[in-house]
Amino acid sequence: MSFNTFGHLFRVTTFGESHGPAIGCVVDGCPPRIALSEADIQPYLDRRRPGQSRFTTQRQEPDAVRILSGVFTDAATGQQVTTGTPIALVIDNVDPRGKDYAEIADKYRPGHADYTYDIKYGLRDYRGGGRQSARETAMRVAAGAIARKIVPGMSVRGALIQMGPHRIDRARWDWAEVERNPFFCPDADKAAFFADYLDGVRKGGSSIGAIIEIVAEGVPAGLGAPIYGKLDADLAGALMSINAVKGVEIGAGFAAAELSGEANADEMRMGNDGRPRFLANNAGGILGGISTGQPVVARFGVKPTSSIPTSRRTVDRYGRETEISTTGRHDPRVGIRAVPVGEAMVACVLADHYLRQRGQVGEPPDWPFSPPAR
Amino acid sequence: MSFNTFGHLFRVTTFGESHGPAIGCVVDGCPPRIALSEADIQPYLDRRRPGQSRFTTQRQEPDAVRILSGVFTDAATGQQVTTGTPIALVIDNVDPRGKDYAEIADKYRPGHADYTYDIKYGLRDYRGGGRQSARETAMRVAAGAIARKIVPGMSVRGALIQMGPHRIDRARWDWAEVERNPFFCPDADKAAFFADYLDGVRKGGSSIGAIIEIVAEGVPAGLGAPIYGKLDADLAGALMSINAVKGVEIGAGFAAAELSGEANADEMRMGNDGRPRFLANNAGGILGGISTGQPVVARFGVKPTSSIPTSRRTVDRYGRETEISTTGRHDPRVGIRAVPVGEAMVACVLADHYLRQRGQVGEPPDWPFSPPAR
Amino acid sequence: MSFNTFGHLFRVTTFGESHGPAIGCVVDGCPPRIALSEADIQPYLDRRRPGQSRFTTQRQEPDAVRILSGVFTDAATGQQVTTGTPIALVIDNVDPRGKDYAEIADKYRPGHADYTYDIKYGLRDYRGGGRQSARETAMRVAAGAIARKIVPGMSVRGALIQMGPHRIDRARWDWAEVERNPFFCPDADKAAFFADYLDGVRKGGSSIGAIIEIVAEGVPAGLGAPIYGKLDADLAGALMSINAVKGVEIGAGFAAAELSGEANADEMRMGNDGRPRFLANNAGGILGGISTGQPVVARFGVKPTSSIPTSRRTVDRYGRETEISTTGRHDPRVGIRAVPVGEAMVACVLADHYLRQRGQVGEPPDWPFSPPAR
Amino acid sequence: MSFNTFGHLFRVTTFGESHGPAIGCVVDGCPPRIALSEADIQPYLDRRRPGQSRFTTQRQEPDAVRILSGVFTDAATGQQVTTGTPIALVIDNVDPRGKDYAEIADKYRPGHADYTYDIKYGLRDYRGGGRQSARETAMRVAAGAIARKIVPGMSVRGALIQMGPHRIDRARWDWAEVERNPFFCPDADKAAFFADYLDGVRKGGSSIGAIIEIVAEGVPAGLGAPIYGKLDADLAGALMSINAVKGVEIGAGFAAAELSGEANADEMRMGNDGRPRFLANNAGGILGGISTGQPVVARFGVKPTSSIPTSRRTVDRYGRETEISTTGRHDPRVGIRAVPVGEAMVACVLADHYLRQRGQVGEPPDWPFSPPAR
Repeated sequence: MSFNTFGHLFRVTTFGESHGPAIGCVVDGCPPRIALSEADIQPYLDRRRPGQSRFTTQRQEPDAVRILSGVFTDAATGQQVTTGTPIALVIDNVDPRGKDYAEIADKYRPGHADYTYDIKYGLRDYRGGGRQSARETAMRVAAGAIARKIVPGMSVRGALIQMGPHRIDRARWDWAEVERNPFFCPDADKAAFFADYLDGVRKGGSSIGAIIEIVAEGVPAGLGAPIYGKLDADLAGALMSINAVKGVEIGAGFAAAELSGEANADEMRMGNDGRPRFLANNAGGILGGISTGQPVVARFGVKPTSSIPTSRRTVDRYGRETEISTTGRHDPRVGIRAVPVGEAMVACVLADHYLRQRGQVGEPPDWPFSPPAR
Repeated sequence: MSFNTFGHLFRVTTFGESHGPAIGCVVDGCPPRIALSEADIQPYLDRRRPGQSRFTTQRQEPDAVRILSGVFTDAATGQQVTTGTPIALVIDNVDPRGKDYAEIADKYRPGHADYTYDIKYGLRDYRGGGRQSARETAMRVAAGAIARKIVPGMSVRGALIQMGPHRIDRARWDWAEVERNPFFCPDADKAAFFADYLDGVRKGGSSIGAIIEIVAEGVPAGLGAPIYGKLDADLAGALMSINAVKGVEIGAGFAAAELSGEANADEMRMGNDGRPRFLANNAGGILGGISTGQPVVARFGVKPTSSIPTSRRTVDRYGRETEISTTGRHDPRVGIRAVPVGEAMVACVLADHYLRQRGQVGEPPDWPFSPPAR
Repeated sequence: MSFNTFGHLFRVTTFGESHGPAIGCVVDGCPPRIALSEADIQPYLDRRRPGQSRFTTQRQEPDAVRILSGVFTDAATGQQVTTGTPIALVIDNVDPRGKDYAEIADKYRPGHADYTYDIKYGLRDYRGGGRQSARETAMRVAAGAIARKIVPGMSVRGALIQMGPHRIDRARWDWAEVERNPFFCPDADKAAFFADYLDGVRKGGSSIGAIIEIVAEGVPAGLGAPIYGKLDADLAGALMSINAVKGVEIGAGFAAAELSGEANADEMRMGNDGRPRFLANNAGGILGGISTGQPVVARFGVKPTSSIPTSRRTVDRYGRETEISTTGRHDPRVGIRAVPVGEAMVACVLADHYLRQRGQVGEPPDWPFSPPAR
Repeated sequence: MSFNTFGHLFRVTTFGESHGPAIGCVVDGCPPRIALSEADIQPYLDRRRPGQSRFTTQRQEPDAVRILSGVFTDAATGQQVTTGTPIALVIDNVDPRGKDYAEIADKYRPGHADYTYDIKYGLRDYRGGGRQSARETAMRVAAGAIARKIVPGMSVRGALIQMGPHRIDRARWDWAEVERNPFFCPDADKAAFFADYLDGVRKGGSSIGAIIEIVAEGVPAGLGAPIYGKLDADLAGALMSINAVKGVEIGAGFAAAELSGEANADEMRMGNDGRPRFLANNAGGILGGISTGQPVVARFGVKPTSSIPTSRRTVDRYGRETEISTTGRHDPRVGIRAVPVGEAMVACVLADHYLRQRGQVGEPPDWPFSPPAR
């Protein structure tokens, strides 16, 4: 993982700013002969797209993805498939509204990367956040749509499980509900509550944080690697790389710190399918950095949006003390859209490790092993 | 970050198992002409070394490090310095006690990586955990000792702030106290409590989790990179790669999810030194993946040790249901030693980003900028 | 170096096929605040562009490059500069003539990668060579134009020095002449000869190979690294990665095998500028993988174009023996365009090592050193 | 490929100087369950070992390799196999004779990296060449011995084919002869000639260059990748990274520049085994960067040893003009030992690409394909 490229064998490089002509990515290392067209990617982008409810940014972007390379339509089958060479995707920016960014150009918004970009590079593209913009995450979602096709039988889903101090009731978890409300919330009651709650936050000129959970099912056992290639280490890096994320946990996560050893360690029995069956999943599907075959469960915390109407003290790039309040469509009041982005990052990590495992080990061993003859 | 190598310009590769002849690492990319001898590394290893109190594993390992390469004594100065070429470090294993590992060899310990190694590789070195062993982390500490010398003026310190459900009183935080108790606990009262508490845990045949905080001071502003090279993303990956860690957070972390935008975003004023002064540090010293110049604050949760005397249900590698209880010196009851390891990982990440920043940007820009002439 | 990405700190990822909608690249790791617009890149593309003489492919491509990201126009100066974030470049394909590729689709052209792509991936985009197409090299030239701006005072120039068995007279070397003939040949007499010679080759339905030399001047001493990061190793990989290249050499190259030790090793004296002066440059500016400060000289051999009208025996993808002859505009008869591509690759390697050296070592040491006091 | 690490999935990191306590390497990414003991590695080291004839350096090093990690003896089979975790190898330095290096310490040997190390790092370990020493290549040979076990059915052999201006007669090529003379020369007559010739070179206080050819048989078709992951690009980088190598070529190499298209492109027929049969191998087994299934043939040129008794003009590190002549055992007069080193590098590249191909593509497609139904 380095700079603007993510992954080892399944590698994603993204580019583009909020107000340039386009954003895009290059997906390198995808296996050949996987059916792929824009129609496989667009639905995931549509889920992430802004402007779909009053709770996200009002920027209007169709986010129509185009595949520029890496696919080929086999004349024999008429099907468009990957060639094994780089898949380039682009989305044109069509609504970089001509706002006056003069205020943002000179002043640093508290909680934003304005200052750190300026002190690092000696300049920054301040239009719409430039490279800081959450718009970059659209390309992660696009890459994730490809990643999902690589691991046979794998599904990756996400849900918002907490907004501000309000946590869902896990007994009410319904994956179908996630697609029915603008919050990707699996608890219908809490989703209704969140609509009112968030209206209040907005009226107060404020914003609020959230916690999101990603669950990957159908992950083969054996993905990951010891030490610095741990599956959970790569997931942690991947999720922490999403804008505004300040915490990541796997399985029981920080709560494991409060557990006793016998409560935390998931016991094992034999399943009917001849594979081990775990009696719990505090491990979140990962032990020693390697997948167990249970669902991989990751959670991340998103800080509240920093661009808010409430006036805040700050300084400008000329070293002068001042105040700032941000108005306009630019930012949502809560990181709802991190749900599809989190799914995508988890899918990319798992696809990468799937290929890495196949590279190093080839076919997984038959399990259980035969007892040695006595 | 891949497999057994960590870092981009400051690269650490570790090797070795618990019961092989030695463990070691290769540190590549270290700048030349940095004073370095075993005496710079050994004190950090001594802090991590097992067997120093009744609360850690009773294995007796002097952990004496030897530098095999990458240093040279300049005849003119008589000082031993780095040459800029790979620094290899080794520690011989002197106490791989001849225990019978027959039980562990066939049975999977719940909460351990026994099963995942077996299903991934089709075999594993079960002696003392093999490559899973926490012994590998000694080499991280050694590499961290070198990393500390790379960023001028930086200090990296860590502390245990929670054990089981018991959190320290931050008002009592005293860094000097950290070196005075076996828990690296900055709250003297809580340290005394922890000694009794942990005795109870041990008598109950159990173990308990912990939360650890690392603080890096003197980190220059501008380290890190947007998108996949974010400083916090690399920290998250680095800390999650430590054995038994299940959660990582930066600054306010998961608590930021419950904050309002105005409470979370750290306001800025001008400091007396002509640099911005932040009025809080919810960001944990990182905005947009780039350091702000404030202390970098990272926290991670360690699950309770899985090797406990309490009997647990499991299966063996031949698919047979069975039970297991682990006795002996092998594991501590709490991840105390993760404190120096966490410090080392943070130091390595910061050293790497320091070199990366110098590579891409060279000298940082003068700040504040001059206002444009009107 | 891996797959479609090249470089370590200065990283270039290319994408696109000959007959897709566009080709492009992402240049990551470029330092910020370097003046950059399309006008800095286009002239280099124009030098490489096909269809400029009867000696190259007759495909008509304006090869107009667009910058999609990574630049920003500072309001204060009005100058467009790099931001330090990824620079994406695209060139639309405007002349993917609707040829019938049915013959190429099934038959393998001898000397082409048709068979190896098919056996590797199980399919290939056969239109215009797909990803094999020399068209990909346009993006290397574009990236090279950026690389040239990174190392202060560096110039990288190339020339064709041999066509078939005919080598130029080095005594007639005139860099200005390189820009005056379609062969990038520095020997005016030989260039005139080559025009006739190549007409003969073409009339005979054949093609011919060539040797090209790249010279980089103004390369600071100290770039490169021991062992696997040797400057010449990276140059060799970079140049061998150009289509049709079968050999690479540095300085005296293979001829050094015939030299005695005293004839080969370049003696040193002190120059008037207080730096060492080498009395020859058999080393090609590189010793031990590290630049000496002399011009870096690399040479590479290009095999003759494989797409020729002369009929050749081959097989098809269904295992049937057949014959093939290639007609049409597709390929030139000699690898003239490898000259600007070779320049670009050398520029990219040098820019990458310049940043790597700055990262690891920072400011180079003052030389000469002070003698120790006695 | 970067710094002291080589490879992508099969990764080799070497360390150590000529006069430190030891040299070593870490081989990461090796598949598990491959039989491996010191006895698999030592024979290759013995072939490379100095002091075996009067034509190599007279340093006496047993070069006894020890495996420190990454293997495990399965109780069931009693066989020691790889675990899939890092394999660390070390060789102790036992003959770092106490020579006075004062002269080398201050003066730069022409043709050596003395000056470039000094100007890069501001110091160097001058004892025996430090990290520049050819001793590092022992670890490449050791890693190569492991690489050889990864690709089923592959053999990699090398031979010296030219010394000074004297080239072998390829009609006399006998692989068995390579093991019978100190020059790894496949032409018995020429080997006898070389013994006398080299005695003359030595008596003249001089040295001479050589050309070496490596042939890998049993390489599966489909290894390699387009663009920057070309198999020949990685081979070129790998071979150019060997000390004193100044040129690399694949198949017909530079001679291809003199060939016509129809002479160069290897025609194809169907073989009796149902695979394509090439009627020549000018491609050296690689087309478009991907292996064809033919033998992979690479050649490299080694410059003459720079450490010779003949006096040469140079400067010292204090900027003073002086002369130098090198006497003693330190260097051979010709790069004979580059033969086993070249074999090892080719084996490492092929093993790496074998794993990469398995990772991205999995099982190769069945060839020939079925013709589409009409």
